[in-house]
Amino acid sequence: MSRIRVAVLGATGVAGQQFLASLPGHPLFEVVKLGASERSAGKRYGEAIRDASGKVSWFAARPLAAEYAAMKVEDAAGMTSDGVDLVFTAVESDAAKLLEPRFAEKVPVVSTASAFRYEADVPVFLPAVNLDHVKLIDVQRRRRGWKGFVTPGPNCTTTGLAITLKPLHDAFGIERVVMTSMQAVSGAGRSPGVLALDVIDNVIPYIPKEEEKVEKETKKILGTIDGSGEGITDAKIAVSCTCTRVNVIEGHTESVFVGLKKKPSVDEAKAAMREFGAEFIALGLPSAPQHLITVSDDPYRPQVRLDRDAEDGMTTSVGRMREDAVLGGVKYMLVSHNTRMGAAKGAMLIAEYLVHAGYIGK
Amino acid sequence: MSRIRVAVLGATGVAGQQFLASLPGHPLFEVVKLGASERSAGKRYGEAIRDASGKVSWFAARPLAAEYAAMKVEDAAGMTSDGVDLVFTAVESDAAKLLEPRFAEKVPVVSTASAFRYEADVPVFLPAVNLDHVKLIDVQRRRRGWKGFVTPGPNCTTTGLAITLKPLHDAFGIERVVMTSMQAVSGAGRSPGVLALDVIDNVIPYIPKEEEKVEKETKKILGTIDGSGEGITDAKIAVSCTCTRVNVIEGHTESVFVGLKKKPSVDEAKAAMREFGAEFIALGLPSAPQHLITVSDDPYRPQVRLDRDAEDGMTTSVGRMREDAVLGGVKYMLVSHNTRMGAAKGAMLIAEYLVHAGYIGK
Amino acid sequence: MSRIRVAVLGATGVAGQQFLASLPGHPLFEVVKLGASERSAGKRYGEAIRDASGKVSWFAARPLAAEYAAMKVEDAAGMTSDGVDLVFTAVESDAAKLLEPRFAEKVPVVSTASAFRYEADVPVFLPAVNLDHVKLIDVQRRRRGWKGFVTPGPNCTTTGLAITLKPLHDAFGIERVVMTSMQAVSGAGRSPGVLALDVIDNVIPYIPKEEEKVEKETKKILGTIDGSGEGITDAKIAVSCTCTRVNVIEGHTESVFVGLKKKPSVDEAKAAMREFGAEFIALGLPSAPQHLITVSDDPYRPQVRLDRDAEDGMTTSVGRMREDAVLGGVKYMLVSHNTRMGAAKGAMLIAEYLVHAGYIGK
Amino acid sequence: MSRIRVAVLGATGVAGQQFLASLPGHPLFEVVKLGASERSAGKRYGEAIRDASGKVSWFAARPLAAEYAAMKVEDAAGMTSDGVDLVFTAVESDAAKLLEPRFAEKVPVVSTASAFRYEADVPVFLPAVNLDHVKLIDVQRRRRGWKGFVTPGPNCTTTGLAITLKPLHDAFGIERVVMTSMQAVSGAGRSPGVLALDVIDNVIPYIPKEEEKVEKETKKILGTIDGSGEGITDAKIAVSCTCTRVNVIEGHTESVFVGLKKKPSVDEAKAAMREFGAEFIALGLPSAPQHLITVSDDPYRPQVRLDRDAEDGMTTSVGRMREDAVLGGVKYMLVSHNTRMGAAKGAMLIAEYLVHAGYIGK
Repeated sequence: MSRIRVAVLGATGVAGQQFLASLPGHPLFEVVKLGASERSAGKRYGEAIRDASGKVSWFAARPLAAEYAAMKVEDAAGMTSDGVDLVFTAVESDAAKLLEPRFAEKVPVVSTASAFRYEADVPVFLPAVNLDHVKLIDVQRRRRGWKGFVTPGPNCTTTGLAITLKPLHDAFGIERVVMTSMQAVSGAGRSPGVLALDVIDNVIPYIPKEEEKVEKETKKILGTIDGSGEGITDAKIAVSCTCTRVNVIEGHTESVFVGLKKKPSVDEAKAAMREFGAEFIALGLPSAPQHLITVSDDPYRPQVRLDRDAEDGMTTSVGRMREDAVLGGVKYMLVSHNTRMGAAKGAMLIAEYLVHAGYIGK
Repeated sequence: MSRIRVAVLGATGVAGQQFLASLPGHPLFEVVKLGASERSAGKRYGEAIRDASGKVSWFAARPLAAEYAAMKVEDAAGMTSDGVDLVFTAVESDAAKLLEPRFAEKVPVVSTASAFRYEADVPVFLPAVNLDHVKLIDVQRRRRGWKGFVTPGPNCTTTGLAITLKPLHDAFGIERVVMTSMQAVSGAGRSPGVLALDVIDNVIPYIPKEEEKVEKETKKILGTIDGSGEGITDAKIAVSCTCTRVNVIEGHTESVFVGLKKKPSVDEAKAAMREFGAEFIALGLPSAPQHLITVSDDPYRPQVRLDRDAEDGMTTSVGRMREDAVLGGVKYMLVSHNTRMGAAKGAMLIAEYLVHAGYIGK
Repeated sequence: MSRIRVAVLGATGVAGQQFLASLPGHPLFEVVKLGASERSAGKRYGEAIRDASGKVSWFAARPLAAEYAAMKVEDAAGMTSDGVDLVFTAVESDAAKLLEPRFAEKVPVVSTASAFRYEADVPVFLPAVNLDHVKLIDVQRRRRGWKGFVTPGPNCTTTGLAITLKPLHDAFGIERVVMTSMQAVSGAGRSPGVLALDVIDNVIPYIPKEEEKVEKETKKILGTIDGSGEGITDAKIAVSCTCTRVNVIEGHTESVFVGLKKKPSVDEAKAAMREFGAEFIALGLPSAPQHLITVSDDPYRPQVRLDRDAEDGMTTSVGRMREDAVLGGVKYMLVSHNTRMGAAKGAMLIAEYLVHAGYIGK
Repeated sequence: MSRIRVAVLGATGVAGQQFLASLPGHPLFEVVKLGASERSAGKRYGEAIRDASGKVSWFAARPLAAEYAAMKVEDAAGMTSDGVDLVFTAVESDAAKLLEPRFAEKVPVVSTASAFRYEADVPVFLPAVNLDHVKLIDVQRRRRGWKGFVTPGPNCTTTGLAITLKPLHDAFGIERVVMTSMQAVSGAGRSPGVLALDVIDNVIPYIPKEEEKVEKETKKILGTIDGSGEGITDAKIAVSCTCTRVNVIEGHTESVFVGLKKKPSVDEAKAAMREFGAEFIALGLPSAPQHLITVSDDPYRPQVRLDRDAEDGMTTSVGRMREDAVLGGVKYMLVSHNTRMGAAKGAMLIAEYLVHAGYIGK
């Protein structure tokens, strides 16, 4: 079978680069178009990612594939969906608001942008957590008259939180969540990005709009398709966050306190996390990790530098599971790779699932 | 009036160095003896702080005063209180357990060690917060038959937390506290200290015993002298912490969520903090800051590198004050200087107050 | 006597902020105008330094003075020299090329930009090193028909190098210099600046145009007024540099190897540096350090974090002085504060000297 | 053929761990004994690497193999060579002085320690550079009456320098070398190691004994077997170094200036490096890289974080090749992985060669 023809929009940014770092040799997807801003249009991709001083700004750990370096970048604003079966978007929210509906009229769009996350007929997919929200795609198509659709993944900080909350919610019923994040600088991308001047020997206590996103998305992702089948009823969970930036290159660390209806032992909570997602893993999707959640008993884990790349950045590492008397439940630390599971590779995994489920194809 | 003659124990460590960095020219205190481990005994202080490779390990920002560099270091284990009016101790807990009672038989001991913090007749003083616990000194002397006494300051992570909770507790009644800390490496001292290998590009999710200390001390510090006058009744507050180490040299950052009986507005909570400690400040003690708490309205503050040295490291910087719907109260970030207000200079401020209150003198 | 009225151009950038951090309460200078790009024009300075997200980008250690925060920023392109006795410029080289001559027609311009450094009738002043080049100001005025003049300071990396080479050159005759720098991120400013993503756990081996500047400026600064009195004859020194960026906020470190005609002992080389600049210091200029060069015998010094702020960032710290058999001379390490002596405060010190020498006044 | 039975001494340290990280599944070597200090003796390896606080101190990127975790650690001081065909040592120099001769009486010892590097009958092997020094093994055996031998690899900072100098020396004749290193903290190991307190936002200008080692070893490695065949005549090269420590976890960066007899163009110098070692690579040894030296034309490379792991940490990355007028030759930057090619894996590669050459076997 020939592969699904993919366009990547926002290809020159940090998130776009992560798509290109993960796509070479993909068994299902073949990159046929690269879109970026007008500034890059007409250049070879390998040239388009040079900055003003001539420096190649390729951020991903894996080297840029020669086949992509030689591709001509198109102006995303003028690009069509001709010859394309699927669009991955890694653009800023404002650009996504304009670009994504235009493509979704014709083809599926799997996005890392926040533009459509909060619309009633748009699911925010998180693999193994809420794939039953897939039915909203049909609603979305019907309401909007699109042949394609838009499915954004969650914010990178929501990702690890919602994945680890899901098994607790299913087994014990979550009432309340208090979370403090310590986020990597790669999440801010390159333009403007986080200046070394600001973060060396420092903690930046604020990331604009981040806390609102995490609070809102977590409730939607853990929510259920409502009675009418036309939307999602948010989970009845109170979520409160403080999001900070620390002097770490990649990988978000989160300190989580959870109030639960049933009070599990520490071992029961760990077991729920360890068992989580077995059915999804069994699908054998190309980008899926071996474990959705990896729980450590070593009190010094997870450590973001040591654990972010586990299972190719696709597992969420959890440790320091303890009872929490204040909220009545458990507290733990998690590490999640913000530009893999939390962005591009997470979006690819969603797309792979949608191929499996018949929503994406040639 | 001649100055109070001071011995500093544990003078060669990071906390001991902070005492010596702050004592030159002090109007009340004059350093007459320096104590350290047997390894350093007999050496000039300036030599004693060289490490195995010959490197001078002086960590404080202010240079070492020549007068101290030239002093002979004594073996703390054999040192007497002769000619000494006051002892500052900056030794590890195990050493403190042995040394502090021996000195307290004769003279006041103000300590940064945890050894005696949890004993019923020992106050854990925090300036402006619980100086009324001073009555326990009399109880301690009576029970133990000491002419002196031991008064430890709190753990460096407790310090900023308890200072900022106090005005909230007085005005609105605290029920519950959830806190995640991002602590500096200087808190771990030099031996073993935190290895660069472990903390560069990383967050270490665990600091042994730290969380228990913070939870226990916060309740004791915010507690009240009990009916009999013989001990302290802990505050009825549930406290849950996660303590982490980040890639920061000095200054602890804490993300705090507080559940309150009365629900203040954000402005009321800020006002309570801003007004806190005015009477204490009015005493004009030499090491006191101009404000116990400095509240910023800029969402990007406090930042530990920018704010830790404010008011010579003696104010606690607070920002990001917001309502918190999960605990029913407020959430905020704080920065506290762990080796100044949180250790040596905080202990000096306690000693200055105890001079004022007549408990320390010639 | 009333103070000299100063305009600061490029006031919102990192270098411009360093001017404003150092000018409050200056005995000679009074800030009367602030100029920046069109984007900032019309705003209060305190607002103009907010970035896109609303964050105040004030980088200097000392807080922004309220008097400057309230001043209206003018568009530098349209600003006149009316009511101004002296202009400090901290703009990019391209902007300096346009702005500086316009002001120099009327008033003295002391600059941190490179635009005019390499012109034959422009001295590149370095305090205590080449103030005799002052005669070129007269040449410049005559040739260009200006009432004012332009005097740029050297590149921040040249500064520490040329200061430490000067006493060696005078005493022993320099033939060759090999230098490798490890430069701080603050030197790159904020726009674009150095991304945390690029420099955490890393060394960046290249800084565009830096090496050429250092090689060229060093020879000019150590050169002599030529026979005609109309220009400078470069010192006959071969200089070769490699300039790198390291994970340090402020302060440049340089590893220097020097070939000398006469071979001094290590002690002679140290003595030459220690004695350097005594006459200049004796002038008592407000921004002058107590020592032009501070030489340490401790092999672990200079360390950039510990030494950059010595003497308010105005001394150059030298250590590890050893004989060098390869070039036939000495090798050493130096630390120089790149945004104080190496930029704004260095320029202020030049201006103070030019006031003393009668070239700047009311 | 059954595999060669290997003992690893100093197995718990950073360098020892790198041996164990690289040995699982090795086609030639099978680990049969682990030796460490008395403190670890009798414990399972997985327990022996816990520190005082219970924290597992496993530093290598690859996880510890279960087979090694379960092995009992022996006291190296009492260990015999029974059942062992080859010893890898990763102990401190003082320990090596005692341990290595005892084992060398019976079996080959390949070492990362400096203890024997400077003895006349001991080669300091560097793969592809000086494997002809192998004849000294016969001299060593004869003189010392040993059945085995000791062959240390070079210091980690010498490694990258000598590898890149070799092709220049062969093609153009080196006269002089000036080098400044920026070394990673992992090179200092864990005990004491480099404290975060010392290196965050800093450059440490001194590493005891490092410069002397690099200067001495470089000349020996590039030297030739003397006329008698009994020793090595040092290369006639003047070498001068300054070695510093920077805030980087792994990988040494070096800024090199080389004076050459014949003056090559930049392209000729690059070509010499690129072609270097082809014969050695062709042997197909298990730990060999695909290229001894990888030369980049991008001025922003090599960067230590991006390039240290290239070819599994076994290639030396070179960039910024330029002519150098001061020494008369070329200047360049290099990145070398200090704990792989520069320590354990480099030693393994030496051992693999010695198997090939018939000096190690069953």
